[in-house]
Amino acid sequence: MNKYRLLTITVAAFSALAAPSFADALKDKKGASEILAASSAEDWVKPDPENTLYIELEGGKRVVVLLAPDLAKAHVAQVKALTRLGFYDGLSFYRVIDGFVAQGGDWTGKKPFGKPAKPSMKSEFDEAPPKDFAFHPLPDEDGYAPQVGFSKSLPVGFDPANNKVWHLHCTGAFAFGREDARDTAAAEFYVALQPQRYLDRNLSVFGRVILGMEHLHALRRVNPPSKEGDDIGEKIVAFRMAADVPEAGRTKLEILKSGTPTFDAYVESKRNRPEAFFYHRPDFVDICQLAVPVRAAP
Amino acid sequence: MNKYRLLTITVAAFSALAAPSFADALKDKKGASEILAASSAEDWVKPDPENTLYIELEGGKRVVVLLAPDLAKAHVAQVKALTRLGFYDGLSFYRVIDGFVAQGGDWTGKKPFGKPAKPSMKSEFDEAPPKDFAFHPLPDEDGYAPQVGFSKSLPVGFDPANNKVWHLHCTGAFAFGREDARDTAAAEFYVALQPQRYLDRNLSVFGRVILGMEHLHALRRVNPPSKEGDDIGEKIVAFRMAADVPEAGRTKLEILKSGTPTFDAYVESKRNRPEAFFYHRPDFVDICQLAVPVRAAP
Repeated sequence: MNKYRLLTITVAAFSALAAPSFADALKDKKGASEILAASSAEDWVKPDPENTLYIELEGGKRVVVLLAPDLAKAHVAQVKALTRLGFYDGLSFYRVIDGFVAQGGDWTGKKPFGKPAKPSMKSEFDEAPPKDFAFHPLPDEDGYAPQVGFSKSLPVGFDPANNKVWHLHCTGAFAFGREDARDTAAAEFYVALQPQRYLDRNLSVFGRVILGMEHLHALRRVNPPSKEGDDIGEKIVAFRMAADVPEAGRTKLEILKSGTPTFDAYVESKRNRPEAFFYHRPDFVDICQLAVPVRAAP
Repeated sequence: MNKYRLLTITVAAFSALAAPSFADALKDKKGASEILAASSAEDWVKPDPENTLYIELEGGKRVVVLLAPDLAKAHVAQVKALTRLGFYDGLSFYRVIDGFVAQGGDWTGKKPFGKPAKPSMKSEFDEAPPKDFAFHPLPDEDGYAPQVGFSKSLPVGFDPANNKVWHLHCTGAFAFGREDARDTAAAEFYVALQPQRYLDRNLSVFGRVILGMEHLHALRRVNPPSKEGDDIGEKIVAFRMAADVPEAGRTKLEILKSGTPTFDAYVESKRNRPEAFFYHRPDFVDICQLAVPVRAAP
């Protein structure tokens, strides 16, 4: 791994020096919080309310999901249709496995849903890039994909040899489950509670939680029920598209745009943290370590 | 990355075939649950009660931490001394940052603790391997370390060129915080809520949560308090060494031994999952994806 050989030399060079030398070497570099504080209004974008999903939980808790139709158009259309049909309202998080996923929907698989939702969908985990695909690769090696990077602030994998692209299972990845057969996803959704990259290209990720992950981490752990009377987990009060919520009730957010000098500086600040606190710097960043910065809209 | 080139060929070869061929190619391989079900009693080890820490929370919730004195002897001695002095009893998780860490102890830094605990300790994040160091490397590339693998079932990094070894910041890593100066750790502890590998070789990890992570994920998120009256988070009822708890009150566990054929088979089942569910297999596993298997003692 060439990257690492370079690093070994760098670390060896640094190791001969006392701790303040790290700070010297990075003295013109800014930490992530400084970079974000110095950003301009143009560095941020307001998520489209038509592609922002609210998962409303009991106690007024809200989870905000940014949907990503570019790479998984049919899945986004499906969850929007189901949301607007009220399908998810009153259902539950019936499979919450620690360190893995929180899955919800209708555990019985019997609740009907009509048009425009579809009874099942073709997979969208291994697609040709859309025409306007703006991919900003990371230079860092990745064990799971030929290339990783960002598309519209979300982490994606890219296989240039086969011209395929897919969303990654980093923490907060929002996806549909399926049966063993590939094209069986319909309505059951899950959120990754931590990175689960081995699920990449096996299940269709089509969004990411950008606010409220702590509510999902706190859900009661529960195994999938198998019969009436089993624990079906905590209740989903409602799924709502932000566009359908009156303006005053919306969560006003902005996310950092990828593919900008500010975003690149943010990534670099995570690759080699300039703060004096650090004694070792890996010259490497795992893409799932790069949570998309989110802030309250000014 | 040689590994990945190999993978590309493998995936390309598979891609030409229909889905059942995956199952054919792996038909003699077992999934993780089958491997663990077929394991023998000798594949498992009971954690030493002298190196097992219970974090007791309100509502009778218990978090079990396996301490690892091999690579961080002074830190383990310190947390045991503080536990037996009752230092942590009644303190709180005062810094719980979503997707990062749950940190606890005495936010004021003023609570006294006497001998045998020390006022501060030398770092133990970059040590020469102990004489009886049994390291079982993973063949998989790692972006953060020259080599990664397992030592007594816990994930460690190894730098053969400089003969240094350290515990990794995977989910559940148990460590002490410090000030900017390297040798300032004393009593404030944290648990990684998800992988934080950039902290490797910067802070002394000396254990891992092996049961009860869900209680830490559910803790109230709270920023570090700065003055009296600020939210200091949820209460720590007590720290107890398992050895000091009457037999009947102990949590009876076993963990899978590393460096055995069963452990290797478990790792391989995560590298290329044989189950028919999977359409893509990465021929790669990130070490933090390998939670140490834990079971109730038979």
